[in-house]
Amino acid sequence: MTNASPPPKRRELVLLTHAVPQWIGPDVESEFDLRMLDLSCDACRHARVMITPGPAKLGADILGELPALEYIAAVGSGIEGIDITYAARRGIRITNSAIATAEDVADHTLAITLALYARIISLDHAVRTGNWPEPAFRRSLRDLNVGIVGLGAIGAAVARRLAPFGCSVKWTGPRFRDTPYDYVADLAGLAEWADILIVAARADASNAGMINANVLDRLGAEGLLVNVSRGSIVDEDALIVALKQNRLGGAALDVFRSEPTPAERWKDVPNIVLSPHIGGYALGVQRNIQKLLRENLHAFFDGSMQKGIVVQETNA
Amino acid sequence: MTNASPPPKRRELVLLTHAVPQWIGPDVESEFDLRMLDLSCDACRHARVMITPGPAKLGADILGELPALEYIAAVGSGIEGIDITYAARRGIRITNSAIATAEDVADHTLAITLALYARIISLDHAVRTGNWPEPAFRRSLRDLNVGIVGLGAIGAAVARRLAPFGCSVKWTGPRFRDTPYDYVADLAGLAEWADILIVAARADASNAGMINANVLDRLGAEGLLVNVSRGSIVDEDALIVALKQNRLGGAALDVFRSEPTPAERWKDVPNIVLSPHIGGYALGVQRNIQKLLRENLHAFFDGSMQKGIVVQETNA
Repeated sequence: MTNASPPPKRRELVLLTHAVPQWIGPDVESEFDLRMLDLSCDACRHARVMITPGPAKLGADILGELPALEYIAAVGSGIEGIDITYAARRGIRITNSAIATAEDVADHTLAITLALYARIISLDHAVRTGNWPEPAFRRSLRDLNVGIVGLGAIGAAVARRLAPFGCSVKWTGPRFRDTPYDYVADLAGLAEWADILIVAARADASNAGMINANVLDRLGAEGLLVNVSRGSIVDEDALIVALKQNRLGGAALDVFRSEPTPAERWKDVPNIVLSPHIGGYALGVQRNIQKLLRENLHAFFDGSMQKGIVVQETNA
Repeated sequence: MTNASPPPKRRELVLLTHAVPQWIGPDVESEFDLRMLDLSCDACRHARVMITPGPAKLGADILGELPALEYIAAVGSGIEGIDITYAARRGIRITNSAIATAEDVADHTLAITLALYARIISLDHAVRTGNWPEPAFRRSLRDLNVGIVGLGAIGAAVARRLAPFGCSVKWTGPRFRDTPYDYVADLAGLAEWADILIVAARADASNAGMINANVLDRLGAEGLLVNVSRGSIVDEDALIVALKQNRLGGAALDVFRSEPTPAERWKDVPNIVLSPHIGGYALGVQRNIQKLLRENLHAFFDGSMQKGIVVQETNA
């Protein structure tokens, strides 16, 4: 598999579903034989590894055409585009890079959460338009309950950042784990308890639309919803109705059902903070993902990557 | 000084420079004989205690008319309106309530700092107007240096909140103290080192205009200025010029030279987040200040307040 020249480089074939040079980096670009996926190309059928952004659609139809595929390296956090049931049956390993994005996505999560809590958008607008408001007393953060949906790498990094603010933190997820925070098995129950509900779960078919009208009503007229995971987890139509009817206090969203989200969809929706799926776009993430991807590729080809893991965030 | 009825209440005279019922609370309202300051009123001349919002102008001219005055309880953090030199000469004690506001002002400081860092205002506007941007890589917070000007109760509360974000923190102030953070004696040197400079110092005559054009130039074209202290500390004209000339990266301001700040002053000034001096307006602050004020008044009239302290944040 190794070319004669340049001698020190390994040149194993690695497929790409998309050109994502910003995540791949110069080392991997020079060390491997990167080719865009093309099902009509015969070499592709012998590829053992593929790099893909997680949201890219990779169903059984495409994977079935790649009989030699053993490993999918997803850059980014989500893997909702990949048919993981099929991949598991084939024994195809999948890694994502949530751990590489966690700290920066958590930074952005705090930014939009605090912007929503502190009404930054409307206060900034008021000052700029000469409508300096009479001060109103806000609730103190240390008096608020924050529920985190999904205490993976991102959720845990969010919880750590919340600690010095003195909020009470509880979390939910599909499985209990021992963490520094109380676990609530029932999402609706967590929403009922929470003043702020932060969605940081990995999106997959099982949790599509999980934040539905009932959950939003439990969160309530003073409650704030924050989503930094994937738009698919939130019933966005129900969210918009709840906001327009003031049955929900506000929402801060970095992710949407479709992206770019149509601007007209958010017209006349009160108490929102919108950002363009930007959470993971930080230089530290780029550095981490390039490093993690390179380590994972080397581990795979060296045979030192653990077997049988469908989703692992790192090969460490 | 105590009325015969109602018997359990103490009814010592306490002057008010302003009606600030939201900070005084029902207990102090019922326990003391509160009167608005009126220099033509003879009883006022015998008052030993006065409550004032710190920014209110209390010069030697007014204080000279109050020969019995022994104690000024300032509600809020600043005491820049009070002639502390004259008060010290007279032995008049002054307390402020920075410690009561610190946690909530620090919450708001993080909100405007992160909003500026994460470009929340412009990204939100882009999404709402259908101009979903191509993602740009921001610098990671953990790669940034944060300089804090004034490590009192508020500055320290800000520093604690920054810790989980992984920023490097150093501080400056008029006097070295042993703290968990490196001290930099020289403000311009701190600005040179810092990517984000957060002003949390108590304003007084000595630091008016301290954040001047030179400090802003040291902070530089990528640097971010945050002010939650008082507008007087920043040379606001120099700040506006630096922002317009892109010699400074951005500014988040909760306080202004004059408040309300004129809207036209900020027209066409790029990369700003403005909030209407709202940092301390939280229910937890109200609770804390009412409690602190009551404790201080009782301690004063009971004779248990420490003597000779010009500014103390609590009587504990």
